[in-house]
Amino acid sequence: MTDDIYSDIGFAKLDLSRETRTGLPETVYCAGKTNEQLLKILQTFQEKNVAVLGTRCSKEQYNFVKESGLPLVYGELSRVIKLGENKTKMRGVLAVCAAGTADLPVAEEAAEVAEFTGITVERYYDVGVAGLHRLLSKIEEIKKADAIIAVAGMEGALPSVVAGLVSAPVIAVPTSVGYGASFQGLTALLAMLNSCAEGISVVNIDNGFGAAMVARKMLRIKEK
Amino acid sequence: MTDDIYSDIGFAKLDLSRETRTGLPETVYCAGKTNEQLLKILQTFQEKNVAVLGTRCSKEQYNFVKESGLPLVYGELSRVIKLGENKTKMRGVLAVCAAGTADLPVAEEAAEVAEFTGITVERYYDVGVAGLHRLLSKIEEIKKADAIIAVAGMEGALPSVVAGLVSAPVIAVPTSVGYGASFQGLTALLAMLNSCAEGISVVNIDNGFGAAMVARKMLRIKEK
Amino acid sequence: MTDDIYSDIGFAKLDLSRETRTGLPETVYCAGKTNEQLLKILQTFQEKNVAVLGTRCSKEQYNFVKESGLPLVYGELSRVIKLGENKTKMRGVLAVCAAGTADLPVAEEAAEVAEFTGITVERYYDVGVAGLHRLLSKIEEIKKADAIIAVAGMEGALPSVVAGLVSAPVIAVPTSVGYGASFQGLTALLAMLNSCAEGISVVNIDNGFGAAMVARKMLRIKEK
Amino acid sequence: MTDDIYSDIGFAKLDLSRETRTGLPETVYCAGKTNEQLLKILQTFQEKNVAVLGTRCSKEQYNFVKESGLPLVYGELSRVIKLGENKTKMRGVLAVCAAGTADLPVAEEAAEVAEFTGITVERYYDVGVAGLHRLLSKIEEIKKADAIIAVAGMEGALPSVVAGLVSAPVIAVPTSVGYGASFQGLTALLAMLNSCAEGISVVNIDNGFGAAMVARKMLRIKEK
Amino acid sequence: MTDDIYSDIGFAKLDLSRETRTGLPETVYCAGKTNEQLLKILQTFQEKNVAVLGTRCSKEQYNFVKESGLPLVYGELSRVIKLGENKTKMRGVLAVCAAGTADLPVAEEAAEVAEFTGITVERYYDVGVAGLHRLLSKIEEIKKADAIIAVAGMEGALPSVVAGLVSAPVIAVPTSVGYGASFQGLTALLAMLNSCAEGISVVNIDNGFGAAMVARKMLRIKEK
Amino acid sequence: MTDDIYSDIGFAKLDLSRETRTGLPETVYCAGKTNEQLLKILQTFQEKNVAVLGTRCSKEQYNFVKESGLPLVYGELSRVIKLGENKTKMRGVLAVCAAGTADLPVAEEAAEVAEFTGITVERYYDVGVAGLHRLLSKIEEIKKADAIIAVAGMEGALPSVVAGLVSAPVIAVPTSVGYGASFQGLTALLAMLNSCAEGISVVNIDNGFGAAMVARKMLRIKEK
Amino acid sequence: MTDDIYSDIGFAKLDLSRETRTGLPETVYCAGKTNEQLLKILQTFQEKNVAVLGTRCSKEQYNFVKESGLPLVYGELSRVIKLGENKTKMRGVLAVCAAGTADLPVAEEAAEVAEFTGITVERYYDVGVAGLHRLLSKIEEIKKADAIIAVAGMEGALPSVVAGLVSAPVIAVPTSVGYGASFQGLTALLAMLNSCAEGISVVNIDNGFGAAMVARKMLRIKEK
Amino acid sequence: MTDDIYSDIGFAKLDLSRETRTGLPETVYCAGKTNEQLLKILQTFQEKNVAVLGTRCSKEQYNFVKESGLPLVYGELSRVIKLGENKTKMRGVLAVCAAGTADLPVAEEAAEVAEFTGITVERYYDVGVAGLHRLLSKIEEIKKADAIIAVAGMEGALPSVVAGLVSAPVIAVPTSVGYGASFQGLTALLAMLNSCAEGISVVNIDNGFGAAMVARKMLRIKEK
Repeated sequence: MTDDIYSDIGFAKLDLSRETRTGLPETVYCAGKTNEQLLKILQTFQEKNVAVLGTRCSKEQYNFVKESGLPLVYGELSRVIKLGENKTKMRGVLAVCAAGTADLPVAEEAAEVAEFTGITVERYYDVGVAGLHRLLSKIEEIKKADAIIAVAGMEGALPSVVAGLVSAPVIAVPTSVGYGASFQGLTALLAMLNSCAEGISVVNIDNGFGAAMVARKMLRIKEK
Repeated sequence: MTDDIYSDIGFAKLDLSRETRTGLPETVYCAGKTNEQLLKILQTFQEKNVAVLGTRCSKEQYNFVKESGLPLVYGELSRVIKLGENKTKMRGVLAVCAAGTADLPVAEEAAEVAEFTGITVERYYDVGVAGLHRLLSKIEEIKKADAIIAVAGMEGALPSVVAGLVSAPVIAVPTSVGYGASFQGLTALLAMLNSCAEGISVVNIDNGFGAAMVARKMLRIKEK
Repeated sequence: MTDDIYSDIGFAKLDLSRETRTGLPETVYCAGKTNEQLLKILQTFQEKNVAVLGTRCSKEQYNFVKESGLPLVYGELSRVIKLGENKTKMRGVLAVCAAGTADLPVAEEAAEVAEFTGITVERYYDVGVAGLHRLLSKIEEIKKADAIIAVAGMEGALPSVVAGLVSAPVIAVPTSVGYGASFQGLTALLAMLNSCAEGISVVNIDNGFGAAMVARKMLRIKEK
Repeated sequence: MTDDIYSDIGFAKLDLSRETRTGLPETVYCAGKTNEQLLKILQTFQEKNVAVLGTRCSKEQYNFVKESGLPLVYGELSRVIKLGENKTKMRGVLAVCAAGTADLPVAEEAAEVAEFTGITVERYYDVGVAGLHRLLSKIEEIKKADAIIAVAGMEGALPSVVAGLVSAPVIAVPTSVGYGASFQGLTALLAMLNSCAEGISVVNIDNGFGAAMVARKMLRIKEK
Repeated sequence: MTDDIYSDIGFAKLDLSRETRTGLPETVYCAGKTNEQLLKILQTFQEKNVAVLGTRCSKEQYNFVKESGLPLVYGELSRVIKLGENKTKMRGVLAVCAAGTADLPVAEEAAEVAEFTGITVERYYDVGVAGLHRLLSKIEEIKKADAIIAVAGMEGALPSVVAGLVSAPVIAVPTSVGYGASFQGLTALLAMLNSCAEGISVVNIDNGFGAAMVARKMLRIKEK
Repeated sequence: MTDDIYSDIGFAKLDLSRETRTGLPETVYCAGKTNEQLLKILQTFQEKNVAVLGTRCSKEQYNFVKESGLPLVYGELSRVIKLGENKTKMRGVLAVCAAGTADLPVAEEAAEVAEFTGITVERYYDVGVAGLHRLLSKIEEIKKADAIIAVAGMEGALPSVVAGLVSAPVIAVPTSVGYGASFQGLTALLAMLNSCAEGISVVNIDNGFGAAMVARKMLRIKEK
Repeated sequence: MTDDIYSDIGFAKLDLSRETRTGLPETVYCAGKTNEQLLKILQTFQEKNVAVLGTRCSKEQYNFVKESGLPLVYGELSRVIKLGENKTKMRGVLAVCAAGTADLPVAEEAAEVAEFTGITVERYYDVGVAGLHRLLSKIEEIKKADAIIAVAGMEGALPSVVAGLVSAPVIAVPTSVGYGASFQGLTALLAMLNSCAEGISVVNIDNGFGAAMVARKMLRIKEK
Repeated sequence: MTDDIYSDIGFAKLDLSRETRTGLPETVYCAGKTNEQLLKILQTFQEKNVAVLGTRCSKEQYNFVKESGLPLVYGELSRVIKLGENKTKMRGVLAVCAAGTADLPVAEEAAEVAEFTGITVERYYDVGVAGLHRLLSKIEEIKKADAIIAVAGMEGALPSVVAGLVSAPVIAVPTSVGYGASFQGLTALLAMLNSCAEGISVVNIDNGFGAAMVARKMLRIKEK
């Protein structure tokens, strides 16, 4: 019976009821897993015929698991690995905004994960606040989105400026982009938590995946 | 013309277009304002016939401004002050969960602010994870909500457990409840940012107001 | 001879050559000094016929020292106390911008100290980035300033947005305005140090005085 | 005579009376020791005929010392190295619970060290709180243990949930699993120290060894 | 039915099954509760005929609730309040050691809570490591205890020295005693977590109560 | 039309109006960009005939982009890469002071960037405060500068001592030089922010580039 | 017999052998002790005819204990209380330097404690590095001292500059003087620990007493 | 004339008057210097016929500079490099105590640097407080030293215990030995700063060199 809810493969108990329970797809955090563990997990899901997504999958891990012949798709920038396809199509549009070029890996992780869950994503990249005209030239489009993910490192000001201009909720993602007193993203994280603009909530540093999961749960509200 | 977008009263520029722009009501952060500044701000909104909400309003501030005869409503626990009424009614239900009794001021701030913006709120208080049966006895009701605010201090584990059981997005609010290595809520904040559960986003410590604003923007998705 | 450079009054050595050496007026940091020490210092400068400025002077300290009959001027908001007048008039204009009403004490400290040193100051208050239209409606005026002081608490994003729009140097002053993860101004400080905009330098939290001193030294460049 | 209590080998004074004094076996912290130092230490214990355990022994260190022909046993996951065998058998059962797959090296260090000291260990792995049903399906077994070690990274909520459900003492071990605001285990450590559940005490980040030592001293209470 | 496991009194859900579930007595954390909330809670337990213990009860709170005529016992130093009596008598002895006089409130909280749960407690106060002879003159007695609580502020070295000399488990309690770089007990906490001695686990700063709860669960091992 | 203000090359929006808007040259932060991205950016500026400067350009990046035949100049110590030449000549002199030999890479970044913007730079290296005679022997020359950049790691005392002796504004640059409790430059940063000397403002750790940008904006005051 | 080494008065074990063992006088840290505890301690030393020194004695504590008629001497600035007289006279001279007027309470604690132990003290106050001429005008005198205590808050640069000019050891005392990013003396502490000058060691923030104890042990070297 | 006090070799100003001024030998901090810079510095001192010491000299740096034929002596453990010989012989004895084997590199740096300055050093290694008998068996010898350096990582308790037993000043050196919440030596540093024992002062993490310099200045007191 346990096997209906999770599959016990010794070093892991694979959650098979997550989609039913939380409406989110099965996902694997690849970092910190051995090549063998990752392969075993992917094969188990394949056997159960469950589409699954992996994040933080290194190039080296991908090279190992693709040898197995599993039908995998991999994004080098986002480090997202996909097995199978999620059939659901969500209503609504998610805008993913990123402040600078160095924030792209995180923004792409968010965008690709969201797309895997059936969301339509629009990307607005390199729209940081130091050159405000870049953001302002796109703002009318951004305003039309149902939910917004705003990705920024350094001083992390992008979500504040965006949230003051739109009516959609803004999911802020601090990145570890910066140096010195950016403290690997801590400064951006703290800035976003202290935003004077309203309607912003925050996920962990570099957590594009988490932001996509929040967006997914938000857009489900529309479905209900 | 400027006066269409904001009203300049010297020490402040009151934002009169916020509702149009962001869909959120006018609000005043009362802490750090003098009695006279707060009164002047409330009177200006009254003159413009705009309903407005104040947060972190001390008993002493309330006692001062109520002398003016403005039709104010004040919550002692939540420290929320209201002028006028927001006519909008939102579809959907917001569940506000709190871990312990000491978290109630923050939870009530969230609940009362949300109600002011037209949201239907259901309260689930003292459902912390140390006595899991209390939460589990309510979980079927909580699952029906469209959005969830989870308020907790100390180790801040409530959002993780809740988010693993529901399909609605969870807005996590760390509180400054605790002592020693709780560091005035920092521990709960960090714990919530690192949740292994999915669909959680976080606002600042004790920021019940901010959580309500996020919930409001989320529920607007349903309206679109 | 020592008395030409400083005056030794036991618990302090009053620097009498600072103006000659650094071009800045004599100043006294009042916090942490007893009433008697402060009075003795002011009287010594009065005897030496040197104009002097005190910062962080509490109402209680002011009430004590004004009893002496010294010709003092005091600002309740800025907590700046002045003895005598600085005759120098500087060329150029300094813009002092503040994000919110709660930042005014720090902004006024900066403005009043700068005015004491002979600078023409223009004030732009409550122009925080959450309601960008307020800042943009003033930006053409701000652009004309020779130097800019930008004061903000919480996420401290104002200097980034301003600096991206102007050619004058921006002196960023973080304030302790905020709560929770603002950590008494640390978040704003870190954000300003990590600004992606160029031409920003930063002073200590709540240090309006220090910002004015930097502005004064900057405007002296014009005089040379 | 000194040689009865410790053996001085120049760079180290090997504690030969620890078992008598504290009831715990001799152990060596291998990290930070040169290959030569480690070998010399192991050989000395071998000569004294004392069973000894090494922790944090890298694969490279193990490869070096095994060349000596000493009868060593090594765990690749736990990085525990063993020389000789501990004859004592302890009464009572220790449950080792781990939240996720990435926490296994720490959990295994705890389990293998405990087993070396004569304790019977039961392992419950991948029972993190985000999928509560995994933990709940095992809880009746866990309740039977005399002492529990709960290992978790990220938000570190596992010990709180477990301790609320059992009567045995819970030794919480935070791990460095996570990223961003997990700060290499600091968040899990703080969360565990602030647990609202009772009967939890905490050891250093990734200190599976230390947790086993505490468990050993606890179970000795039964022996007395 | 719910009333069998907890009693819902609106602002709180009183856990009535804790003793059955975890073997620990009902307890109330008084700090942060209003006088009225505290009284209501105590009266509810009185009605249910359940002995209960309150910690961090201020003198002012005690003065309020004793007016009710409830049969309360209060410790001024420990700030522990007791209602009713715990009939259980535990086997085994707990030694409570404190480094300095200023650590006594925390040590007494631990001792009185432990005694309430039926434990026999022996106190060893002012045995800090700066005057080692004080500790050494008592060590033979301390060695006989089944479990040890070691309370210290400042550099927190006491648990390290004690644990190296005994075979019982040591529960280390850092206190906020100190100043400057003691950071309200953070230094003692970190020192205890990094102890080079074995068999030490740590609870939150000033958490004498928590240490007693751990001791209670440890001594139950003996009962099984 | 957008192309007049910025050039959209997919992963980046190159700011072409920055010089008009802020008076500062186009610059590229090379760290975190792929070789291909960097090359594409440089080629785009070359096509637009805009002189551009890159900072934090690794040797490896330089080796890659120079293969393209672009007329690049590279500084190994400063890691500054230049394409084209800035024709403007600024009036005034900038003194760049560095405390120790290990601070030279940062000091050189500041100096070379400033020179690229048309500033005359004078270098004063290895003038740290531990051997005060070195600084004092140069102070008369330093006093003549219009603006001063003071670069120091470890305790970061150089700006305090310099600013007390001169009338020019001092831009303080903390460096990550040091070890242990220097925390990669945090100590120097904090010390500079707390300077008791007046006329000091601070940029991020190791941010020689940022200091040069501030100096450039300062010297423009003279031009107006 | 125990009574030869310490006197057990219940809440404290008074160390009576400290002078013999460590060459330092008996001292009492008054902060955190009740009035009654302090009085009892002083009376016990009086009975044993041992001269004793108390630090951090509040005015209110002094007022209480002086009622007893004990022959006490109290310093309002230093908060040092003395009972009896130390007869020893040490050879050598200690210079106590302080950066600013607000550092005087800490400097005086150091000076008065040192004098109580028989040391000849010379005071050099308000010699901070922002006005270097004040320090330089006294440096020839300071050079003659056998040991130097350098007290400073804010950026804490004084010890670095002094130590580079003298051959005596410098004991650096950071003070909590400052605001914002001084973090109650943490910045000064870190700066002093990272000094590029040689021969500096550091004590806790505001620990004038501790510095005097180190100086006393240093000057004993001369006696041997 | 300048050449009498320092030698300017472009990237560095070699301090030639340090010994006269501060009584300490010339020293070079090798970390962060290029091979070429280090060689040039050593050659310059050789030409001036000044004995010099280098610290933190990597094996790779040593291999480079020894090619020059300079008469260098290198310690692999301490990473100290010596050129020439210091003829001075100091009176008095320095004890260097280290808690664990992993602390030896720092202890050896202290010992070898001290010996280079003419001090007689006695080494007491692996005497950490977890096995107190090791320290106590040596304490009578240690008591005879004129000054003591105590080196420890992890919880850093060694200096507290030693200082309580001796009359010589104790220079505490925290090391980065440890893991997790040792934070690379921060915990040991903080613990040492908060020692309840008297006569302890502290240097930076891993700063064996700095401790030796303090010891040298202390022992000079004896010479005067």
